[in-house]
Amino acid sequence: MTVSDAERLARATLCYIAEPCDGFLGPMIRRLGATGALDAVRSGHAPHAGASGEKERRRLAEHMEWWRVRLPSADPEADLTVCEKLGGRMVCPGDPEWPGQLDALGDKAPYGLWLRGPADLRYGCLQSVAMVGARASTSYGTRVAADMAAELAGRGYAVVSGGALGIDAAAHRGALAAGGTTVAVLANGVDFVYPPRNDGLLTEIAQTALLVSEWPPGTTPTRLRFLVRNRVIAALTKGTVVVEADIRSGALNTAKYAQDLNRPVMAVPGPVNSVVSRGCHKWLRDGVATCVSSAAEVLETVGRIGDDLAPESRGPVLPRDRLDPMTLLVLEAVPARGSAGAAEIAVRAGVDLATARGRLGLLSAAGFIEHYGQGWRVPRRRRPKR
Amino acid sequence: MTVSDAERLARATLCYIAEPCDGFLGPMIRRLGATGALDAVRSGHAPHAGASGEKERRRLAEHMEWWRVRLPSADPEADLTVCEKLGGRMVCPGDPEWPGQLDALGDKAPYGLWLRGPADLRYGCLQSVAMVGARASTSYGTRVAADMAAELAGRGYAVVSGGALGIDAAAHRGALAAGGTTVAVLANGVDFVYPPRNDGLLTEIAQTALLVSEWPPGTTPTRLRFLVRNRVIAALTKGTVVVEADIRSGALNTAKYAQDLNRPVMAVPGPVNSVVSRGCHKWLRDGVATCVSSAAEVLETVGRIGDDLAPESRGPVLPRDRLDPMTLLVLEAVPARGSAGAAEIAVRAGVDLATARGRLGLLSAAGFIEHYGQGWRVPRRRRPKR
Repeated sequence: MTVSDAERLARATLCYIAEPCDGFLGPMIRRLGATGALDAVRSGHAPHAGASGEKERRRLAEHMEWWRVRLPSADPEADLTVCEKLGGRMVCPGDPEWPGQLDALGDKAPYGLWLRGPADLRYGCLQSVAMVGARASTSYGTRVAADMAAELAGRGYAVVSGGALGIDAAAHRGALAAGGTTVAVLANGVDFVYPPRNDGLLTEIAQTALLVSEWPPGTTPTRLRFLVRNRVIAALTKGTVVVEADIRSGALNTAKYAQDLNRPVMAVPGPVNSVVSRGCHKWLRDGVATCVSSAAEVLETVGRIGDDLAPESRGPVLPRDRLDPMTLLVLEAVPARGSAGAAEIAVRAGVDLATARGRLGLLSAAGFIEHYGQGWRVPRRRRPKR
Repeated sequence: MTVSDAERLARATLCYIAEPCDGFLGPMIRRLGATGALDAVRSGHAPHAGASGEKERRRLAEHMEWWRVRLPSADPEADLTVCEKLGGRMVCPGDPEWPGQLDALGDKAPYGLWLRGPADLRYGCLQSVAMVGARASTSYGTRVAADMAAELAGRGYAVVSGGALGIDAAAHRGALAAGGTTVAVLANGVDFVYPPRNDGLLTEIAQTALLVSEWPPGTTPTRLRFLVRNRVIAALTKGTVVVEADIRSGALNTAKYAQDLNRPVMAVPGPVNSVVSRGCHKWLRDGVATCVSSAAEVLETVGRIGDDLAPESRGPVLPRDRLDPMTLLVLEAVPARGSAGAAEIAVRAGVDLATARGRLGLLSAAGFIEHYGQGWRVPRRRRPKR
C-alpha cells in the first residue's frame, strides 16, 4: 500500500462531505492533495480552488460552507469499518486496486471508491465494457443485453453497469450466468441495495463480483447522483454499449461521458416502432454511436479504438506473483490440460463457489485463463506468425 | 416530341437485341446515336464501341454476333403496338417523360423505357424515394415499409420499388393506400406480371400508377436482369431506403448503385436477432447507410443531400400549359378552397377513380397540389419570409 492512513481517512471524509465531480474540490485535491484539501476545508481558507472573479469566489465560499456543515457528522473510520465488515474496502488513487483509466476524468475523478465483493476492480476492469439502457426495457432488449453480456463475459470481458432495473440488470445477470465478472456502479452506499427489486441480483454481485460506489455506506441515491455516477461507468470501461434508450435517458448520459472520454459509444438497434430504441437510433443516425448487433462486434469496436486502455491480452497482464494467495489457489486449480467448470475448480482449490467464480473472472480479465466451452482453461501458447 | 420515329424504333430494337448496361453498346450509342449504333450492328462493323486491344475486340465481336442473331426476330413496331394497347408507351432520352436523373448513369443509361400506367414517369419521379428490401420480409418489416411508404406518398413523394414480394410489395401498397404515386421497375416486360402472387398489386399499379421496364413486352425475368434493373430504381430516385435485407441481398445491390450515384443510402434498423435485418445493420455499422426510423427522417436525409436532383418544390415544377388535357381536367377539379378526396375529384373531373388517383399523384409530385388530411388541396401561397 502506498496510500497513507491519513490520506485514506481524508478521502473517505471528502467522499462524505462533498458530492463527486465538484468543480472546486477536484482542483484543490490536485494542488494540495487530499489531506491538504481537507485541511483547507477545515480552515475555511482555500486559495487553491481555482476560483477567479467575485462570482466564482462567492460560489466557492458556498461550497466550503456546505462541506464544513457536514464535517462534524463525518466518521470516516466508522464508514471504513462498515465497509470492511461487508467484505469491502475503500480504494484511493495510488492503491494497487485503483483503476488507472479513471485518471482520464482529471479533476472529476472520484475522491475514492467504496467496493464490496471479491472481484478486483483494477484487473477486472482492464478488459471491460459498459452496458447500459432503459429501466423500462422490452423483452427484446432484456434478451439481447443478457446474451451479449454473457458472451462478453465468456470472452473475459467484465460487464460494467449501474445495477438498475431493466437493461442494467439483464447485463449483470448475463455476465453472472456466463461465470464472468460484472461490476455494478451504484449511486448509493454499497451497504444496501437499491432498487429493492434488484435485491437478489445485487446481493449475488456483492458475493461473486463487485459493487462500487463513490459514496460512503449509508448514502441514499438521488437523481443527481445517478447522473454523476454514470461518468464512472464510462471511465472504467473500454467502451459503452447502449441497448435500449429513449431520447432522454440516463443511458445516453453515460454514453455522452464515454464520448467525451474518446471511448467508443455503441448502440444496439431495435424495432423502429419501439419507443425505448429511439435514443439508440438517433445516435446511430447522428453518427455518434456505432451499430453493434453482437458481442463480437462490440469487441471489434473496442479493440479497434480502445487499445490505449490496456495492452491486447496476449498473456497475463500482471505478474503471477502479484496475485493474492486466494486467487493463486484458484489459478492453480485450473487444469493445465483440458478445461474445468467453476464448481470443479472451487473443489480443487478448496474455496467456495462464489469465491472461485469471482477469482476466475479476475484471472480471465488478467489473461491467465480463458473461457472454454462451459468451463475455464489455460490459454494455449500462440504460435508466432511467420 | 423531339424523338424521331426512326430513333424510337432503333431504341426499341436495341432494347430487344441487347441486354441493358452493355459495355460496348452504351459508348456506341453515345458516339453514333441509336440509329447509328443499330446500323453498325447491322453492318457488323463497330469502330466506335471503345474496344481496345485484341481481347476487347474479340469480346466486341462476340457481342455484335449475339445482337445480330437476334435482329431477324426483332419487331419493334409490334412491341410498341402491344405496349400502346396496354395503355403504355415507350420513352426515350429526349422525350418529355424521360427522367433527366437517368443521365447520371452515363453509358449505362437504359436504351429506352417501356411504361404502362397513367402516372408521368418524369414528374412522378422528380420527388421520389426508392424503397427496397427482402422478399422474405417479416411482419415487422412489411408493416414499417407500408407505413413509411404511405407517409412518403402522402407528402408527395413517389415510392419506387421493384414489384417483388415482401418489402417491395409493402412499399407499393403503402403508397397506393395513401393515394400517392408508386413506380414498379420490373425485370420483365410490362405486358405481364411477375411474380404471379403480386398479380393484383401489379395490375393495380398498371391501372393507377406506373410499371416500368427496360425490356420490351414479352421479355421474361432472369437473375441478371433483376440485378441490372436495380440501377434504374436507384437512378430514378433521390435516395434508397433498405427496410430489411440479409447480408447478400438484391436490396443491397440497389443501395450500392445509389451509393455509386452519390444518392443517400438509408437503412431501417430492426431486431438484431432478425436475419433479414443483418444487411441493414452491417451497412449502418460500416457507415455506408444512414439510420432512418420514419418517413420524416427519410425526407430529412434526401433533402439534405439529394437537392441536386430537383429544385425544392415550392410550387409547380412545370408550366400548367404543359399538362396533358386529362391531367388538367383533374387539376381543375381540385377545389380552390378547402380540400377534396380522390373520388370527389374524379366525379367533378368526369374521369374514373383510377385515372384521378394517377393524375393526382403526378400533380402532387409536380407541386400543383398537396395532400391535406384524407384529400387533396391547392397549396396556400407562402408568405415571403421577412
